Amino acid sequence: MPLDQALRQRIADAVAASFSDQIAFTQALVRFASLRGQEHAVQDFVFRALRERGFALERFAMDREAIERHPGGSKFSEHHSQAPIVVGIHRPREERGRSLILQSHVDVVPAGPADMWTRPPFEPAIEGDWMHGRGAADMKAGAAANLFVFDALRRAGLQPAATVYVQSVVEEESTGNGALMTHLRGYRADAVLIPEPEDEKLVRANAGVLWFQVEVRGHPVHVREMGAGANAIDAAHRVVGALRELEAAWNARRNEHPNFADDPHPINLNIGQIEGGDWASSVPAWCRIDCRIAIYPGTAAAEAAREIEATVAAFARQDRFLANNPPRVVFNGFFAEGYVLEPGSEAERVLDEAHRAATGKPLETLVSPAYLDTRVHALYDRVPALCYGPVSKNVHGYDEAVSLSSVQRVTTAMALFVAEWCGVEPVSG
Amino acid sequence: MPLDQALRQRIADAVAASFSDQIAFTQALVRFASLRGQEHAVQDFVFRALRERGFALERFAMDREAIERHPGGSKFSEHHSQAPIVVGIHRPREERGRSLILQSHVDVVPAGPADMWTRPPFEPAIEGDWMHGRGAADMKAGAAANLFVFDALRRAGLQPAATVYVQSVVEEESTGNGALMTHLRGYRADAVLIPEPEDEKLVRANAGVLWFQVEVRGHPVHVREMGAGANAIDAAHRVVGALRELEAAWNARRNEHPNFADDPHPINLNIGQIEGGDWASSVPAWCRIDCRIAIYPGTAAAEAAREIEATVAAFARQDRFLANNPPRVVFNGFFAEGYVLEPGSEAERVLDEAHRAATGKPLETLVSPAYLDTRVHALYDRVPALCYGPVSKNVHGYDEAVSLSSVQRVTTAMALFVAEWCGVEPVSG
Repeated sequence: MPLDQALRQRIADAVAASFSDQIAFTQALVRFASLRGQEHAVQDFVFRALRERGFALERFAMDREAIERHPGGSKFSEHHSQAPIVVGIHRPREERGRSLILQSHVDVVPAGPADMWTRPPFEPAIEGDWMHGRGAADMKAGAAANLFVFDALRRAGLQPAATVYVQSVVEEESTGNGALMTHLRGYRADAVLIPEPEDEKLVRANAGVLWFQVEVRGHPVHVREMGAGANAIDAAHRVVGALRELEAAWNARRNEHPNFADDPHPINLNIGQIEGGDWASSVPAWCRIDCRIAIYPGTAAAEAAREIEATVAAFARQDRFLANNPPRVVFNGFFAEGYVLEPGSEAERVLDEAHRAATGKPLETLVSPAYLDTRVHALYDRVPALCYGPVSKNVHGYDEAVSLSSVQRVTTAMALFVAEWCGVEPVSG
Repeated sequence: MPLDQALRQRIADAVAASFSDQIAFTQALVRFASLRGQEHAVQDFVFRALRERGFALERFAMDREAIERHPGGSKFSEHHSQAPIVVGIHRPREERGRSLILQSHVDVVPAGPADMWTRPPFEPAIEGDWMHGRGAADMKAGAAANLFVFDALRRAGLQPAATVYVQSVVEEESTGNGALMTHLRGYRADAVLIPEPEDEKLVRANAGVLWFQVEVRGHPVHVREMGAGANAIDAAHRVVGALRELEAAWNARRNEHPNFADDPHPINLNIGQIEGGDWASSVPAWCRIDCRIAIYPGTAAAEAAREIEATVAAFARQDRFLANNPPRVVFNGFFAEGYVLEPGSEAERVLDEAHRAATGKPLETLVSPAYLDTRVHALYDRVPALCYGPVSKNVHGYDEAVSLSSVQRVTTAMALFVAEWCGVEPVSG
C-alpha cells in the first residue's frame, strides 16, 4: 500500500533529524581498519549497535564444508577471514508486511601505500559533502544506513510490520562466502536490499568473478649463463598474454548477453598482484600472479575455471620453457556466478517509488562488471535482490569518499522502501 | 725461482694428505646458511680457524662513508651486511718473496624454494665427485682452499717466505664492498688470487655490474573502471621493454671490447625480482623490479647509471601513463666497473706453471660476464688479480655442486703458486 505524502514527509524528516548521528556512526565504522581477516572488532561493534537497538541477535562462523559443497561457494585460502557473521533480527508485533533482508559487508580492500593518500585512510575526514576513508563508500555508509533506517522510523514512532534481518557479513571483497553463509544458515526473506555505492542506481545485472593464482617455476642459473636458464618472471608475463587473449575472446561474446552488449569491455582481467624471484642477480626461478576475471551471468564459475585452466595448459604446451615447467593454476577466492535482476518485480517498483520520493528522479539502472553479494540472494534465495546505494568517488582507490547528501537521499529512499515493503506499525512498548 | 720437481711432488702429496680434512672443513663452511647479512657466525668460524693456524688477525666493519666516497664503492641499502671482514696475516721469518692476498667471500646467494632442491641446500652431501650445497662452489671450496694451502705447505714442513693476507669478505654477491673495504683498510700485496669456481681457468676479463630498482606508482581504481586507471604491473613491464632495448644496444657495442667480441650476448640484463600490487581485485598501484645489468670494462658505473636513468626517463616521457607517474630508479647494490687482466704478468706466468704442474694442461683463460671481487685489486690496488678456481655445476642455481677432484687439483696449483710466488721457508718454531 503506497505511503501517503504526510507519512513520507515524516519519515524523510526523521532521517534528516538522525543524520548527524548517522554520520558519526559511519565515521566510527570507518575508523576500524577492517581489512580481510581483521573484521572481528568492527563486527563486535555492529553486534553491540544492534543489541542496543533491541534486535534479536545471532552470530556465527563460516561453515567451510557446507560452503565448499555449495555451487556458489568460493575457494578458501589461508587468507580467508575467521571473523563472524552478525545478524540482527527485527520481529514485528504482528507480521503483516513482506519480509526483508538488509545486508552489508564490513570488510574493506587494502589501502595500498599510505603515502598515496591525501589523508590517512582510516581517519574519516569530512570535507564539504564528502566523507573520506577506505571503506567510507564501500560500504560502511551503507552498513550505517541499514541501522539508521530503523532509527529514523523509530524517531517517527514506527517500526517495520514484517520480519527484517539486518546482516553484517565479511568476505565480500574476496569470496562472497559471508553472504552465502547467511543463505546456508537458512535466512530467507521476500526481498533483499544491499546499499553498495552504486551512484543512486539499481543494479540490473552483475558479472560473476573468479580469483586465481598462476605459479610458474623453473630452474635458475647464474646470470652469466642466462640463455641456458628459465626466467620465470618473463614466463609469467607470457602467460598473462595468453590470459589477455581469453579476456578478449570473452569480451567478443558480449552480444550474447544483452545487459552487457553496450559495454565495450565488460570482462576485465586484472593482474592484481605479482611476486617473483629472490635476488637481483639470480635468474628468477619462480613467479606468482594473482588474477581476477569477470564472467557473464549464466556462466557457472566451474565452467569458466575449466576454460582458464585449458587456456593456460594449451599456451604452456607450445612454449619452450613452460612445456617442461607447466604453470600451476589455483583458484583461491571468488568462484562466483553473476546474476540478472529481472525487470518487473514488485520490489523494484516499490524501490523506484521510494527513490522518486527521496530524490525527485526516476530510478535508473546500471550493469555492474564487479562482484556483488546480491548474487547469493538472486541465484540461491531466488528473490528480488536489490543493490542500490550512494554516490562515491575512488572506490578501491586512494582517497575513497562517499557523498553525504547522497547518503541522506539513499537512506530516505531506503526508509520509504522499508515502510512500504514491510508496512509499518507503531513502535513497540 | 721455479720449484724443483721433488718439491712440487712433496707439496702435491701434502695437499693430497690434507684433502680429507679440507673436504670436512668445506662441508663445515657450507653448513652455515650465510646468506646476505647472515655471515656473522661463519666469519667467526673462519676467524677461529685462522687463529688456530697461528695467523695474526684483524677483524673490521664496513666504513660506509669511506666506501661511498670511493669511485668503486657500491650502493648501500637496508639489506647491506653488517658482518665483519676477517683478515689473517702470515708474516714470514724473513721477507724474501713476493707478497700475496688470498681472498674469498663467505656470503652466498639465496637458495630459492627449498622444494626445488634434490637435497637440502645447506647439508653438504657428497655423491661421487660432487659436493652439493648452496655455496659449495661459490665459494666455500675456495675459502677452504685458501687455508688448506697453508696446511699443506706446513705438512711439507714449509711456509710462505713473504707476507700473505688471507681475507674472508662478505657482500661479494651484492656490492663488492667487502673486498673494497680491504683495499680501503690499506692492505696491498704484489698479487691477488681469488679461487672462485672458474672451471680451472683464469679470468682474463670481467664485466662490471650494476644493481638497480625501478619503482612504478600510479592511481588504482576499482577493476570495474580498469580503463580509467593505471596498471603499475603492466607499466613496469613496459619499462622492462625499454631496458631490453638498452641491453641490445650495449650488446651491439661488443666489438669495441676485444675480450667480449666473441660472446654473442656479453651484456645480460636480469630482472631478478618483481613485486607489485596488494590484492587480486585492485588494479595494481605500484610495482618494483630489481634489476642487474653488466657493463664492459672501461665503462664507469656512474656513466652506465646515467644511461640507465636517461633510458627510463625518455621511455616514460612518451608513455601515456608513465609520463604522469615517472618511474623512480634507485641504484641499490653493485655499482662496479669491470676489469681486464692484461696478459704478460709474472703472476700469470707463475700460475700457468703451477696449473700445468697440477693438471698437466696449459692454463686457459675465460671472459666472465659476472661480477668478481678481483676488480678491486685490478682497478684500485693495480696489481695482477688472478681469479681461478674449481669446476662447478649450477652456481646460483638449484643443486649447486663443486667437483672435489677439481678442488684438489686447484688447491695443488694454488699451493705451488704460493710456493713459487712467495718462496718458502721452513715452518717457524
